[in-house]
Amino acid sequence: MSGTFVIAQGGGPTAVINQTLAGAITAIRARHPGARILGARHGVRGLRDGHLADLHTLSAADLERLARTPGAALGSTRDKPDAAYCDAVLKGLRAAGADAFIYIGGNDTAGTQSLIAQASGGTIACVHAPKTIDNDLVENDHTPGFISAAEFVAGAFAGADLDFRSLPGIYVGIVMGRHAGFLTAASAAWRADPESGPHLVYVPERPFDRERFLDGVRSSLGRHGHCIVAMSEGVQDRDGRSLVEHLVPPEMLERDPHGNVRLSGTDLGQAVERILAEDLPRVRARVDTFGYLPRSHAGLVNATDQREAFEAGTFAVEVAEAGSYSVALQFDGKATRPVRVPLDAVAGKTRHMPGDFLAADRDQVSDKCMAYLARLLPPRPDIRTALV
Amino acid sequence: MSGTFVIAQGGGPTAVINQTLAGAITAIRARHPGARILGARHGVRGLRDGHLADLHTLSAADLERLARTPGAALGSTRDKPDAAYCDAVLKGLRAAGADAFIYIGGNDTAGTQSLIAQASGGTIACVHAPKTIDNDLVENDHTPGFISAAEFVAGAFAGADLDFRSLPGIYVGIVMGRHAGFLTAASAAWRADPESGPHLVYVPERPFDRERFLDGVRSSLGRHGHCIVAMSEGVQDRDGRSLVEHLVPPEMLERDPHGNVRLSGTDLGQAVERILAEDLPRVRARVDTFGYLPRSHAGLVNATDQREAFEAGTFAVEVAEAGSYSVALQFDGKATRPVRVPLDAVAGKTRHMPGDFLAADRDQVSDKCMAYLARLLPPRPDIRTALV
Repeated sequence: MSGTFVIAQGGGPTAVINQTLAGAITAIRARHPGARILGARHGVRGLRDGHLADLHTLSAADLERLARTPGAALGSTRDKPDAAYCDAVLKGLRAAGADAFIYIGGNDTAGTQSLIAQASGGTIACVHAPKTIDNDLVENDHTPGFISAAEFVAGAFAGADLDFRSLPGIYVGIVMGRHAGFLTAASAAWRADPESGPHLVYVPERPFDRERFLDGVRSSLGRHGHCIVAMSEGVQDRDGRSLVEHLVPPEMLERDPHGNVRLSGTDLGQAVERILAEDLPRVRARVDTFGYLPRSHAGLVNATDQREAFEAGTFAVEVAEAGSYSVALQFDGKATRPVRVPLDAVAGKTRHMPGDFLAADRDQVSDKCMAYLARLLPPRPDIRTALV
Repeated sequence: MSGTFVIAQGGGPTAVINQTLAGAITAIRARHPGARILGARHGVRGLRDGHLADLHTLSAADLERLARTPGAALGSTRDKPDAAYCDAVLKGLRAAGADAFIYIGGNDTAGTQSLIAQASGGTIACVHAPKTIDNDLVENDHTPGFISAAEFVAGAFAGADLDFRSLPGIYVGIVMGRHAGFLTAASAAWRADPESGPHLVYVPERPFDRERFLDGVRSSLGRHGHCIVAMSEGVQDRDGRSLVEHLVPPEMLERDPHGNVRLSGTDLGQAVERILAEDLPRVRARVDTFGYLPRSHAGLVNATDQREAFEAGTFAVEVAEAGSYSVALQFDGKATRPVRVPLDAVAGKTRHMPGDFLAADRDQVSDKCMAYLARLLPPRPDIRTALV
């Protein structure tokens, strides 16, 4: 394959998605000297609209800086192409003379690649390279982007715990994650001892119950003098309604043009503030919404995550030589390695936290989850928990 | 002075307030071998209630770990003692046999020290050591705790800018600061070029105007394709009403038992989300509330801030040998050095951002503010702004 590679980035950016881009460019140069390397601006949209950038001229120094840069340098998109859109993308790939198309993204991106691979009838190698802070791709032990975001969350909650040991009260940190609770679970990674927060962890995988929540808060306040709560944006009740929908009067709910309830962290934050103000009115409480901070903070990027993301990019080029596949990071008991799996094994599927990642009897992560996080993240900084 | 030193911590914790504690302990040991060193738990409250910890037994390794630990290790308090409370504190100090009392905190803490110094009639050296992420202490060029928090905010906005170059829209980050805008202004510290966000900066020092805000957002969207907004929790309108009060219908405002409007970042976040949804309904918008994250993240502590906070503690011990004073960090044009100033020069006063730290014609920081931030913070990480 000495012809033309097209690379694009899809979905929410991460701190290391540009490492994967840089890894792919590096591998193409090494394995296919003379090949053209094009970048589609804003994912498949750039292919549909003919917005391509020549990536061939990037110097080695440019490439190193690019790799270190958070955000999706080519621009990203949330477009989910239907059949007609796919045709337009395929036309764009053919117009560019593409032999291979490497698309870096999550499960929607894998789905798009599956459609385009089919439509191309095997003439273009369509490779999906994994990326998501949600860690919700099946076939993967973990995904590039997750470790950096998880380390941000771990440090935030370790710090909040120390802050609220100083000035007691209730702290709720709302963490991204619509369907999978991995990133919220990472709040517990740097718990120092059973006294340490987060004392309560709420994820989309387990139904949220208001009374149980309040009991948990009261119990933590009684035992530790403070209560640190980690909550996913996507928590929902037993009937599958989002917590926001459950707590906010129907007339106050904001809906998008399709009638879906708008579900921002701020909405959930307000709902939780209201519950605490109603039921525990005399206790100091603070709710912060982390939002995009864990995925894009320019000062906090994990080195393992950087390396794995880069390797996912270099491996995607090898995989393209064999055809259309998804790259997955798998753990063999000793090390994490990229492997290739069928696109349809990943496309459109969501990986949830395993049931045994949650403690059976408490709203808390399990020892198994803690071991998983400890394998991925650096150890807690060498700091104290409390002076006396 | 070979007798007894009491140390306490007041107000909101920071990432480096324990450096000041460690610095004071280190200096007492070096300058006054044999002196007793006691820590009051939860500030003056510990003196009133007789909760003191013996700090003498801390090993050198303990002290180093303590210094690195965010949060207030002795516990903190927001109590503002009146005359009767001060008497109780003074009794506590006398019962402990205190010759000197070092209280680490903000302008309220300086106020407390002034009262206790007076009440003691000069028999106890009452020293205030500075601490606040708000950077709002008069007499100080900047305060221990500010640089770490400012670096967190700078990295968050540099990252958000890259994130929203990838997927266009409006981002609003709400930053702590009731009266002073320094920490919110730090959002601009790592702006790479005039294209980079934050494109709009709102601080308590300048009245907020809804129409002007929306014009600014529209203009930034038109020029850059995205708009990054940094906003202080304490922004207020021309009449001195908080933005929340201005935007939320009166019947929905939450008030505390004293009738004051509750002013959390989440309230403001909701108010801003509502404005954007009303006036720019088709533009993707996201509001995040940083809250306590900048002051307590366990993974992001600035080395200069650590050193200066430690030195403020060691210098406080020297100052105590001379009497009751406040320690202030002053800049002589070349270096930052701790000096002593009268307690009443600092007590209860709030330092606001100088008027010329804001651009005259735009909702943006000025070049002078950028130069100030550049002097304090590390340079922007060596990352790109956009690929093409």
